[in-house]
Amino acid sequence: MNHEYSEKLIVQEVAPRDGLQIEKQWVETHDKIALIDALSTCGFTRIEAGSFVSPKAIPALRDGDAVFGGIRRESGVIYVALVPNVKGAERALAANADELNLVMSASETHNRANMRMSCESSLAGFGDVVRLASARASLNATVATAFGCPFEGHIDEERVVSIARTYREMGIEGITLADTTGMANPRQVARLVTRVLEYVPVADLTLHFHNTRGLGLANVLAAYEAGARRFDAALGGLGGCPFAPGASGNICTEDLVNLCDEMGIPTGIDLPKLIALSRTLPALVGHDVSGQVAKAGRNCDLHPAPDFARAI
Amino acid sequence: MNHEYSEKLIVQEVAPRDGLQIEKQWVETHDKIALIDALSTCGFTRIEAGSFVSPKAIPALRDGDAVFGGIRRESGVIYVALVPNVKGAERALAANADELNLVMSASETHNRANMRMSCESSLAGFGDVVRLASARASLNATVATAFGCPFEGHIDEERVVSIARTYREMGIEGITLADTTGMANPRQVARLVTRVLEYVPVADLTLHFHNTRGLGLANVLAAYEAGARRFDAALGGLGGCPFAPGASGNICTEDLVNLCDEMGIPTGIDLPKLIALSRTLPALVGHDVSGQVAKAGRNCDLHPAPDFARAI
Repeated sequence: MNHEYSEKLIVQEVAPRDGLQIEKQWVETHDKIALIDALSTCGFTRIEAGSFVSPKAIPALRDGDAVFGGIRRESGVIYVALVPNVKGAERALAANADELNLVMSASETHNRANMRMSCESSLAGFGDVVRLASARASLNATVATAFGCPFEGHIDEERVVSIARTYREMGIEGITLADTTGMANPRQVARLVTRVLEYVPVADLTLHFHNTRGLGLANVLAAYEAGARRFDAALGGLGGCPFAPGASGNICTEDLVNLCDEMGIPTGIDLPKLIALSRTLPALVGHDVSGQVAKAGRNCDLHPAPDFARAI
Repeated sequence: MNHEYSEKLIVQEVAPRDGLQIEKQWVETHDKIALIDALSTCGFTRIEAGSFVSPKAIPALRDGDAVFGGIRRESGVIYVALVPNVKGAERALAANADELNLVMSASETHNRANMRMSCESSLAGFGDVVRLASARASLNATVATAFGCPFEGHIDEERVVSIARTYREMGIEGITLADTTGMANPRQVARLVTRVLEYVPVADLTLHFHNTRGLGLANVLAAYEAGARRFDAALGGLGGCPFAPGASGNICTEDLVNLCDEMGIPTGIDLPKLIALSRTLPALVGHDVSGQVAKAGRNCDLHPAPDFARAI
């Protein structure tokens, strides 16, 4: 492993969106705003703060307008909103989202299950959003199930590359490759990142990993070593997979930042602050969360030696 | 990442020892034997089946003699016993353990806390065990806290290298580098494995990682890429860290084998059988376990598409 680890790894915090969206316990609007405001002081440059989808589809995030309206905008932080269609984009623009994130799955079956439409319809809708929003906000589009589909299984890499190129040709600058249900492995990640970086500038590429099968951080490292620099992660590892009850969700932000700190990869994020914030999550969502470093502490948080050891 | 992944990765299953040793609920001797017998049919070539330590120190494993006496010895499987001293070695030899595993910490403070003696006393005891046992069983010795100590923090790499060389010079062939409380990171792992492989043949080197801070599998991959081939892992991720309540313990065997299967690294281990066995653990130990793949299934365990998707 003869890599340089001096280049900054950019973490986009997604707990307020991908983390909270599956929570069953309602999180009050003012608590969402407080969480985002606290995250805004931790050193992040990008926060996915909410979504503008149908309240029937994602009731947990039905207050996106009030959340975006209530947060304190930290200078230097880009506040991203997930939008499924033109209607969502209109709401997100009205709420002054800095960036809109669109989603389509590489898997036709998954797109129909998740977005209730064909990939062709999704792309047509993206065109409408570009026309509406491109002068008013930055645009990003996600290739969901880019590393595997829970219905179809294997996803052809060339299809993912082709979708990323299509997004770019439509005028969408930001591209996210999402491992929606945690099926990626480091070897595959290195290969696909290398391919996609032929068409997408590194500053525009985000990797979104889930830790469903325990490989999230190994996949980040493989992607970083292959040249990727921007990653989604959720405080506490919030989120989950509807097909894997009890399994982890998004990769955990503080676990990722701890990895970077230990390896010497700069992130600009304040880990002690993040750990303290993560420790407030169980009270907020009503259950334990999967992040490890908030439980174990950092390496440098030493323990007192037992008395009999000191006595010898 | 231009690595070949064709060389076999050898997994030593340690759940019966490092997994069960901290369990508070007593696991009956016949249940331990049934677990080991089931593991023996999964394709492992090495199983750490128990320990011969003071019943006061580790009451959960006080039945080591009966366990080793009761298991069915599968041909081709090496059954390892952890021993702290000559007394333990005598018991392990009487129980026909194929290999004895000794332990000393690289950290003086940790060794005094864990083994109740100085490193110098530990090494003297190792000499006694070598004289007693070297003609009757294989020998392995572990460098605990090789990647960091919860009391002392940073551990000098040259100290770890020096201890490994000392073990070899004493006539102990097998060397394990243990990340006892999950403080290792992939960059450090690659560096230390490269150094130790200058003195220890690859066939004799084992890496033992804990997933306390979520980096266990990333560390395995870094070690494999640096040339290591043998790894400890525990079914279900059993085990834990006394300093990190709620955090993971050993890296999880089925999660590791899933990683290898997905990357094309051969292990010789039957993953579906292992997953089925892991799913019996919560009933055995009385609580949920941290392994992810037993919850999420393999990538190839596909889900039926929702009806409305099929109807389109």
